Amino acid sequence: MTTNENWDLSLIYNRDDLFYEDLKQAKELLKTLFESKTTYLDSAENYLSFLQTNTSLSRLVQKMHVYAHLNCDVDPNNQTYQTMMSYVMSFIQDISTQLDFFEVDMKENEEKVLTFIKDHSFDDYRYVINETMRQNKHVLSQEIETLLSETTALSQVPSQAFDALRLEFPPLIINGHPNVLNSATLNMYLKNPSQQIRRTAYQQFFGEYKRFENVFAVTLSGVMNKDAFYAKVRKFNSPLEASLDEDNAPVELFDKILTKANKDYIHLFHKYNALKKKALGLKQFYNYDLNAPFIKIPNKQYSIDQSFKIIESVISIFGEDYLNIIKLAKTERWIDFHPKPGKRIGAYSSGSYDTRPYILMNYIGDYQSLTTLIHELGHSAHTYLSSQYQSPVNSEYRIFVAEVASTVNETLLINYMLEHARTKEEKAYFIHELLESCVGLMFRQPMYAAFEHELHSRAARNEPLSSQTITDLYKQMNEDYFGKDVILDEMTPYSCYYIPHFYYNYYVYKYTLGMTVSLAIVSRLLKGDAKQKEAYLNLLKSGGSEDPIDLLKHALVDPLDDQIYDDAFNYFETMLNELESLLFK
Amino acid sequence: MTTNENWDLSLIYNRDDLFYEDLKQAKELLKTLFESKTTYLDSAENYLSFLQTNTSLSRLVQKMHVYAHLNCDVDPNNQTYQTMMSYVMSFIQDISTQLDFFEVDMKENEEKVLTFIKDHSFDDYRYVINETMRQNKHVLSQEIETLLSETTALSQVPSQAFDALRLEFPPLIINGHPNVLNSATLNMYLKNPSQQIRRTAYQQFFGEYKRFENVFAVTLSGVMNKDAFYAKVRKFNSPLEASLDEDNAPVELFDKILTKANKDYIHLFHKYNALKKKALGLKQFYNYDLNAPFIKIPNKQYSIDQSFKIIESVISIFGEDYLNIIKLAKTERWIDFHPKPGKRIGAYSSGSYDTRPYILMNYIGDYQSLTTLIHELGHSAHTYLSSQYQSPVNSEYRIFVAEVASTVNETLLINYMLEHARTKEEKAYFIHELLESCVGLMFRQPMYAAFEHELHSRAARNEPLSSQTITDLYKQMNEDYFGKDVILDEMTPYSCYYIPHFYYNYYVYKYTLGMTVSLAIVSRLLKGDAKQKEAYLNLLKSGGSEDPIDLLKHALVDPLDDQIYDDAFNYFETMLNELESLLFK
Repeated sequence: MTTNENWDLSLIYNRDDLFYEDLKQAKELLKTLFESKTTYLDSAENYLSFLQTNTSLSRLVQKMHVYAHLNCDVDPNNQTYQTMMSYVMSFIQDISTQLDFFEVDMKENEEKVLTFIKDHSFDDYRYVINETMRQNKHVLSQEIETLLSETTALSQVPSQAFDALRLEFPPLIINGHPNVLNSATLNMYLKNPSQQIRRTAYQQFFGEYKRFENVFAVTLSGVMNKDAFYAKVRKFNSPLEASLDEDNAPVELFDKILTKANKDYIHLFHKYNALKKKALGLKQFYNYDLNAPFIKIPNKQYSIDQSFKIIESVISIFGEDYLNIIKLAKTERWIDFHPKPGKRIGAYSSGSYDTRPYILMNYIGDYQSLTTLIHELGHSAHTYLSSQYQSPVNSEYRIFVAEVASTVNETLLINYMLEHARTKEEKAYFIHELLESCVGLMFRQPMYAAFEHELHSRAARNEPLSSQTITDLYKQMNEDYFGKDVILDEMTPYSCYYIPHFYYNYYVYKYTLGMTVSLAIVSRLLKGDAKQKEAYLNLLKSGGSEDPIDLLKHALVDPLDDQIYDDAFNYFETMLNELESLLFK
Repeated sequence: MTTNENWDLSLIYNRDDLFYEDLKQAKELLKTLFESKTTYLDSAENYLSFLQTNTSLSRLVQKMHVYAHLNCDVDPNNQTYQTMMSYVMSFIQDISTQLDFFEVDMKENEEKVLTFIKDHSFDDYRYVINETMRQNKHVLSQEIETLLSETTALSQVPSQAFDALRLEFPPLIINGHPNVLNSATLNMYLKNPSQQIRRTAYQQFFGEYKRFENVFAVTLSGVMNKDAFYAKVRKFNSPLEASLDEDNAPVELFDKILTKANKDYIHLFHKYNALKKKALGLKQFYNYDLNAPFIKIPNKQYSIDQSFKIIESVISIFGEDYLNIIKLAKTERWIDFHPKPGKRIGAYSSGSYDTRPYILMNYIGDYQSLTTLIHELGHSAHTYLSSQYQSPVNSEYRIFVAEVASTVNETLLINYMLEHARTKEEKAYFIHELLESCVGLMFRQPMYAAFEHELHSRAARNEPLSSQTITDLYKQMNEDYFGKDVILDEMTPYSCYYIPHFYYNYYVYKYTLGMTVSLAIVSRLLKGDAKQKEAYLNLLKSGGSEDPIDLLKHALVDPLDDQIYDDAFNYFETMLNELESLLFK
């Protein structure tokens, strides 16, 4: 391993004591803010100064946090960074306690503050203050807010208990030999050519979830009750409205995403399943057969340099500025490439206004590594451009738009690979990769969302959620979801207990929107749509300076308009038909 | 099995439709109460009528509930009674929702109500209304009370998750054969003569608690946070004060009970442990050896008639009235004696003002069956006498005094058996039984209470409770508890996760008080103290007509006075010395 394949965190702090100098400075800033508690609203000048000091504080905290957590993730046993991490986390707690007056103050002094921010000196703060005012409609009296803050520990019990319940699985016996079965190896067995192995792996795995179904029913219903409680107390009409309010999105958007995937275009998913059944030649096609191999996987390896060469070709469509970011990522060493003992698994992009947008990888040179790299580079380019074009308060983007930058890149990569594929088999492989990724985000997540929504709604109506009612519901939804060609295994109803996203309060449909928008954008880019290219690059530069829906509208992909769904699903259908031709014609 | 060894529930309803007639009448009463919501405080007459109607409603509900649950407990698959049970439970929910105005009304109209109840027509209600007023100091505004009632579902998650996490244990291999290990069989293995079997059973059993330690840490810290939350919101100084307030007991009482057991008299428990170590001849004496057999168990069986004969002899000390209750229990068939498939395990006494005080047994004719029978008859006699001497509102007694009636009987039985024992071995056996029962209630529960109190206190200070901190604390407390002669097994720290009582909010020390009071009473009765006998019988007749501490004071066993502790622990010491003589002299 050459040293330039580790990330260079000295660009954040080149000596550890600089971290502690920043911490000292941050504590001073917090003290200043706290001490101005009774005077910061006395004048526009005071208020502006308060906001600016607060921004400085946030920037320092984010910088320290990025430094500590990146170091911890590659070197978890190093006490130097664990100590930094606990200092940051406990300081964040201090900030939230000491500045808890801000929200209620904004509510009680709305008129005054709105007058203050008319002045152009508040230009950078206007959006975020208006957002605070909008969300403040649901802030309650100081007495109730204090009481609600006391419920925090209790409200975390469902997800904490879910996280703590780590299951152990009986070993999977193959040819008389025991094999490790766990969430890391399950997918491997589901891709095994033997239906017997797939079935046994699936049943043994989800059988453990059945065994503990009553605990999971308590934690899952608990988290639904938690969301329903806060929604009701804060006077939202439903848990859904409470969640959408954070992004200022209408219920209509949620309904549209679910209707498109779960009703209008579900036949495309069913068609894909029928194609798999035919390709595998199975008379009895079960849901544990959906990942069975029917396409040959090219045994190709990509060195880091080869990956960058491909990525640069793919990205060249966006011009010099974007390309230069990719080059900086390499020359400034933003990326930690290789797996190491103790290093965090998976991949992410993480950075802040005052750091580079670093990338953690576990690069092993297969096509998946290449895909992951271009995906994370999408996030990093987004962060980089946002920081370049926006003020610190407006640079942070939300999950709604975040996934666009990454999946646009991923989809462009697949198209590049398709174009450059030399055999029918290679073509089929890349289309299959694309379709699988679309199914996961555009069909499965909306089904999850519908299930979660029904659980939230029942919780809001105080209906009891036993394991029986939860798994009955999940079973019925899966039958509609998979369609008539797929037989559900008897353990499928319990697989709902495996999914952590149900503890994230209406999170999964945001992935769907990201993918839909991305497919619509890519399908237009591939047709040479220059206006779309311009609008997309502007989206990356806009960070969090507007409501996410406005950002998307300005990027010509209005999520309330049918067009993007039609574009995205039509693109899916085109690819599906092409796979069919490659396989059967 | 002769039919008079089943209970006769036809004494409650001799036709099932009479249950539904009562339900109809109860619904009418609830309607009347709800409709008087705006007028019931208009005059003393209205108020008295409201209270009387409410009493009638409670009596009906209790009668229906007793009928349904007793039937369900012996015949759980009978849908007739399951249906009755769900009608009762959902009706109880209706009552609590529809009458939720009462508490806040009492707070807001305190002066008016206190004037009303000066009249002698309120004699029966005066104590309970004053109690309501006292506890009302911690009732909050209607807005906050409504919000708090919305937290109910969330607050139950820790104990629900704890209940739902049913562990499975690896089989215990003895002589090459697998044996079922679970919470029902563990004690049997801990009484096995082989130290190897005791150790393996203990380690395999609590090893499973270690395996899931992080889940249990979440549920246990969750329930502590829950109690701390409500205590803080209701403006108590601590979770302990909040819990004691229900019984109008001072913190001083809790402290005294713990100091006596955990400090002043702990040397007696350590002396008992040293005696066991010596008797077993073990050099390395572990805590899983504490139940190892060092005394021969008499192989004696007691028919139901023989048991009653003994019980009547024991009970004769209390005179004709008490004896007649025991006779009624037999002739009116209050008791369901025999184990049956599906019947609830264990034993209890259960009844209400308008039913007999029934007893569920699983009688198998050993000494334990006899003990259990006299224990439950103590509860039933208490219920019977309370109902006979008190008005319906004042008849229900609280847990503080409940255990006195049962353990007095148990202790008197052991003394009777001792007197009538024919051999040294028999004597040793009965003393051992007494000492074990004392250890469980007078030493172990105060240690549990101290542990629970420390967890509650940390939760109230918002200190994090990880499994590491919880088990470290429990380990240290167990070391102090068992003393220097007992070596702790490495799994002992995880055994705290096994105990359901920690989910009951300061419950365990109430057992201790009950046993201490009982031992003090019995030691005096055995000395022929006629005043004590009179005072004790009066206690049984007093039901819940006063604060539990006042009831005990009037029964000459003031729980704030050192005397009862000295009497109780001296009695323990006398018995311990007698056992020592029997074994070693």
